[in-house]
Amino acid sequence: MVKAGIIGATGYAGQELVRLLLGHREVEIAWYGSRSYVDEKFASVFGNYVKLVDDICKGDDLEQLAEEADVIFTATPQGYLAGILTESVLEKAKVIDLSADYRIKDVSKYEKWYGIEHKSPGLVAEAVYGLCEINRESIKKARLIANPGCYPTCSTLSIAPLAKRGWIDMDTLIIDAKSGTSGAGRGAKVQNLFCEVNENIKAYGVASHRHTPEIEDQLSYISGKEVVINFTPHLIPMNRGILVTAYAKVVGEHSADELKQAYNEDYEDEYFVRVLEGTTPPETKWVEGSNYVDVNIKYDPRTNRVIMMGAMDNITKGAAGQAVQNMNLMFGFDEQEGLRLVPMVP
Amino acid sequence: MVKAGIIGATGYAGQELVRLLLGHREVEIAWYGSRSYVDEKFASVFGNYVKLVDDICKGDDLEQLAEEADVIFTATPQGYLAGILTESVLEKAKVIDLSADYRIKDVSKYEKWYGIEHKSPGLVAEAVYGLCEINRESIKKARLIANPGCYPTCSTLSIAPLAKRGWIDMDTLIIDAKSGTSGAGRGAKVQNLFCEVNENIKAYGVASHRHTPEIEDQLSYISGKEVVINFTPHLIPMNRGILVTAYAKVVGEHSADELKQAYNEDYEDEYFVRVLEGTTPPETKWVEGSNYVDVNIKYDPRTNRVIMMGAMDNITKGAAGQAVQNMNLMFGFDEQEGLRLVPMVP
Amino acid sequence: MVKAGIIGATGYAGQELVRLLLGHREVEIAWYGSRSYVDEKFASVFGNYVKLVDDICKGDDLEQLAEEADVIFTATPQGYLAGILTESVLEKAKVIDLSADYRIKDVSKYEKWYGIEHKSPGLVAEAVYGLCEINRESIKKARLIANPGCYPTCSTLSIAPLAKRGWIDMDTLIIDAKSGTSGAGRGAKVQNLFCEVNENIKAYGVASHRHTPEIEDQLSYISGKEVVINFTPHLIPMNRGILVTAYAKVVGEHSADELKQAYNEDYEDEYFVRVLEGTTPPETKWVEGSNYVDVNIKYDPRTNRVIMMGAMDNITKGAAGQAVQNMNLMFGFDEQEGLRLVPMVP
Amino acid sequence: MVKAGIIGATGYAGQELVRLLLGHREVEIAWYGSRSYVDEKFASVFGNYVKLVDDICKGDDLEQLAEEADVIFTATPQGYLAGILTESVLEKAKVIDLSADYRIKDVSKYEKWYGIEHKSPGLVAEAVYGLCEINRESIKKARLIANPGCYPTCSTLSIAPLAKRGWIDMDTLIIDAKSGTSGAGRGAKVQNLFCEVNENIKAYGVASHRHTPEIEDQLSYISGKEVVINFTPHLIPMNRGILVTAYAKVVGEHSADELKQAYNEDYEDEYFVRVLEGTTPPETKWVEGSNYVDVNIKYDPRTNRVIMMGAMDNITKGAAGQAVQNMNLMFGFDEQEGLRLVPMVP
Repeated sequence: MVKAGIIGATGYAGQELVRLLLGHREVEIAWYGSRSYVDEKFASVFGNYVKLVDDICKGDDLEQLAEEADVIFTATPQGYLAGILTESVLEKAKVIDLSADYRIKDVSKYEKWYGIEHKSPGLVAEAVYGLCEINRESIKKARLIANPGCYPTCSTLSIAPLAKRGWIDMDTLIIDAKSGTSGAGRGAKVQNLFCEVNENIKAYGVASHRHTPEIEDQLSYISGKEVVINFTPHLIPMNRGILVTAYAKVVGEHSADELKQAYNEDYEDEYFVRVLEGTTPPETKWVEGSNYVDVNIKYDPRTNRVIMMGAMDNITKGAAGQAVQNMNLMFGFDEQEGLRLVPMVP
Repeated sequence: MVKAGIIGATGYAGQELVRLLLGHREVEIAWYGSRSYVDEKFASVFGNYVKLVDDICKGDDLEQLAEEADVIFTATPQGYLAGILTESVLEKAKVIDLSADYRIKDVSKYEKWYGIEHKSPGLVAEAVYGLCEINRESIKKARLIANPGCYPTCSTLSIAPLAKRGWIDMDTLIIDAKSGTSGAGRGAKVQNLFCEVNENIKAYGVASHRHTPEIEDQLSYISGKEVVINFTPHLIPMNRGILVTAYAKVVGEHSADELKQAYNEDYEDEYFVRVLEGTTPPETKWVEGSNYVDVNIKYDPRTNRVIMMGAMDNITKGAAGQAVQNMNLMFGFDEQEGLRLVPMVP
Repeated sequence: MVKAGIIGATGYAGQELVRLLLGHREVEIAWYGSRSYVDEKFASVFGNYVKLVDDICKGDDLEQLAEEADVIFTATPQGYLAGILTESVLEKAKVIDLSADYRIKDVSKYEKWYGIEHKSPGLVAEAVYGLCEINRESIKKARLIANPGCYPTCSTLSIAPLAKRGWIDMDTLIIDAKSGTSGAGRGAKVQNLFCEVNENIKAYGVASHRHTPEIEDQLSYISGKEVVINFTPHLIPMNRGILVTAYAKVVGEHSADELKQAYNEDYEDEYFVRVLEGTTPPETKWVEGSNYVDVNIKYDPRTNRVIMMGAMDNITKGAAGQAVQNMNLMFGFDEQEGLRLVPMVP
Repeated sequence: MVKAGIIGATGYAGQELVRLLLGHREVEIAWYGSRSYVDEKFASVFGNYVKLVDDICKGDDLEQLAEEADVIFTATPQGYLAGILTESVLEKAKVIDLSADYRIKDVSKYEKWYGIEHKSPGLVAEAVYGLCEINRESIKKARLIANPGCYPTCSTLSIAPLAKRGWIDMDTLIIDAKSGTSGAGRGAKVQNLFCEVNENIKAYGVASHRHTPEIEDQLSYISGKEVVINFTPHLIPMNRGILVTAYAKVVGEHSADELKQAYNEDYEDEYFVRVLEGTTPPETKWVEGSNYVDVNIKYDPRTNRVIMMGAMDNITKGAAGQAVQNMNLMFGFDEQEGLRLVPMVP
């Protein structure tokens, strides 16, 4: 059995890792790390794990953890891992980082958007961006994975087939995204209280959200052009789920069927991407609790734009599920192991 | 006291008219029309009106109603009023129609988008589009008001200042909108059940929603150009509220301040439009239960696009509140009478 | 115009006071007190007040406030007012306290259930318990009002008619209550985050909730017996609303009609209490945003128990609305002034 | 592989059976029965099953189904199965009925509470009440299982340890229950629309809910006395989850520890019942999507009552999960097979 350690196990993504790894046949969890709850029972923080997890929360001694674990998941605040990760750790254990620390290759761009000095810029080049459907082969050989952000995962997979083919004008691309509140984390903030979020919707981070450069980078790699976009996330009164609605002008002559065919081709063999039939719009409910991304498009001949839509569980495929998928690739496990989750309705 | 009649009083917009008119000092409700609940107590359908309304629901005899009322509100399905409205009715009472029947001047366009034959095309030309902030003077003289749709109201007011000045490229305009579920009406449909809507988000009517030509018409009048847009509404798990996020390229050289100034100028004297400070994004919660529209913009120099945002209560300013505002104008009442509602938080 | 000051204006109950007082024809707000937001614009904390309130938040200097205001509302944490209230303040201004500090006549009982030392026990005797429907005449003459808790208000009004007549066995009384989350306040606590409350229900304070002795006191006064009860509150994923379901054995022979008649008699002239028809169960939605309490009962001949039910908005009649009702009585205003709020649906 | 057929596969409980059986290693689904959607793709009704289920919905020909399946699950309206079930069917396939048709041994009691004539009273005696933790051995030998109702499952398991020991006075027992809206089914009814349920709570079926005699029967068997109770269910604005709060007087001298010990003893070996530590109240969120029932109690010395609490997912342990658990027992599978579901948070 591969031994896994989690730093940040009592955040929403961290505890979702626990849910997934408990159902994984090749892995056992050796370390539940949580600075806020050291020495407390993990199951007393998250009551869903009563009778399933007896462990006590430990701290964040990364060097020690690397001695005890084969793989380390870090679900930690931005800048945290960059401050403590060392070559010595990477020699002992594979690291899958759910924060943004190693996602952006241009360190100065990272520092500008995040307002943080990067403490281990020397490790950035090595890190592999863990979007499995795009970078599968590199992931298999990686020691350090930059697990993608939730919005970038859903956005990139929704847009990639047309961006890759050069069938959309990337200068016209606009991404309007909507996320459930678990994406805001488990910190005690007034703005995330039930009464502030419930019966409300708002945009946030307008023209300034930190996932913007990450999305731009990925779409630039895919399209072979420098991409600059508008990206607007919105906070939705629900726990889980991300919906992306993206707009772009079609370049050249492409019928609605031809555009759709690009998705069917690219995702034919991808277990975790479901191209919906006809023009059925994706719904977050259909993927809740699973590692699926549902995508579909609608071509509008009136404006010659294509509307690209994707739905995903932000905590699963958008965080912990994709992290497990990355681990499966890195360790040569079946890519679907632990992730054959049927979405839960209602 | 002016006597008001309501056809469709037991829908969500209809009963909101009751809420507003009960607080109006110049009006009394003389007719609670509801085909589904004829002869039942209105307060047994909507328990919030216990002890406030003792009336029994009546039918939809428009000619009779015109004898008894000075103003008639119709909150009825598309095509219904067009099928029964006559010159004789309009001679006796003013009519404010909350359906779409008289909103679109080009009858063939109406028939195409709604898939309905228009039964009284001869009355379309006379109808005034009741967007008070735009058509105030015409409304004052009107007999028949086409009360605007919820999405068109919020979209038009969010975009008008820049469209009017020619400062945005209307060919690049995209409107991504989000609505609470009351917008879907009170019909018993599986797709609107609690368990289907809750913890879910989806786009609907993609590139085909019926409010598209209405928005295009209004923005065409305002900008003086033929406007064709992408408009995508989304269903949100909340009762009330509409949020509009619109995107367009800026034409010419205009600073963020200059763009913002257009809103401050246009809405300085508009009681029901609140231009928020700085770049604070509007939130639907801040307008809930009131007749306000909150608007704001953010200019993005990276893309030279402006993001225009508006938040509104879809049942109030997006339906019943605007209808009362129209009535106030038509009868020479204070425009704010019955509408000085403080938004309810939380 | 009477001048009102609010200490704790940026809590949920405090800002609801603002909503109500803005619609009150005899009062103007002279002091928005909020320690957390001193020198910030009130409308920047609660965006619903943009264009309605231009004031800046002030501190909690009670002596100074008493110079400037005729009536002071305190929506503050338990123990706070008791620590600063003086005879000097009461000589200058009437005080309506929304906290629990003066609700329980037996100071040792207060100190035991709240775990706080009472700092001004000498003022407890003078304070009048502001349950308007029960203590109307005393309230009119009071300087200091202990504004009732939300659960006690709804519980007492739901049970009083039968308790008063001795028609139920008070030893069998059980109160099972359910509250929206605004009752938990606006403090930044993990347990009140959206993702913790949404899609969840739990009991809390089982056999230990602080409103227990307050309910027992009131029912003891009304029934003339020492009452000891079980009271179990539950947290519900909604913003506003309290529902009380109470159970007791019927004493003697009383038909369902006779039991119901007690409610009709007692509340016939009470504007803010609505006895529903037949056995229709109250729903919190029917009272949302209003000062109404809806009550009804169902007699079960199989068990000889009566189920007493009440629904109320916890922020309005359960806090700010009742405070305004108390003010109206104290200043000789129409008791309904500022409180003729039509419940908002949906 | 055992072949399973489902009648009523497109209801909430029916499709949950699909979710669970897809993860079961000994079973395959051979028949997706749904009268409303015959000849439609199952995955076009429930989009969560895209790429997981390719089957087309079939009708409800029970005789034919019995030829093709080893076990038949019926998630159908009350009275439906009783009208079509025959000895011939039972000879060919085991039947697990999720409706109430065979739960109550006294047919006249069934007919009175349900207002339906029972069409196959001769089969009632044979049916085994499928509450696995109570009737495990009988279930193993059964051909026909009456799968328990959601409220009766949660109520019985929460109360059984004290009822069995005679430590509570059954005449004082009151059950106040709260359920998510999926319990109301997927029928298109106005009262279950999002806008009617959201931001609302109400009691329903007060002193008349059909689960009352079922709970009374089970508690009568367990306690050895004729039990008559008050049972009040409430509708909660959430999708899944049932919470039971039950009250009874303690008989004799029993410390809080002794009462708690009864639960620890009885449920020590029960995988699906979790007795929480200390007096931690159960929360529905901690069991969501799983087959667990979380129970706990609090003794109140002031009133000598014990408050017994249970939380459960109404669709899983309260319907489909328990049905699968019954199947596991009937076919000699591991009782936990297909049911090792980790509750999903948030």
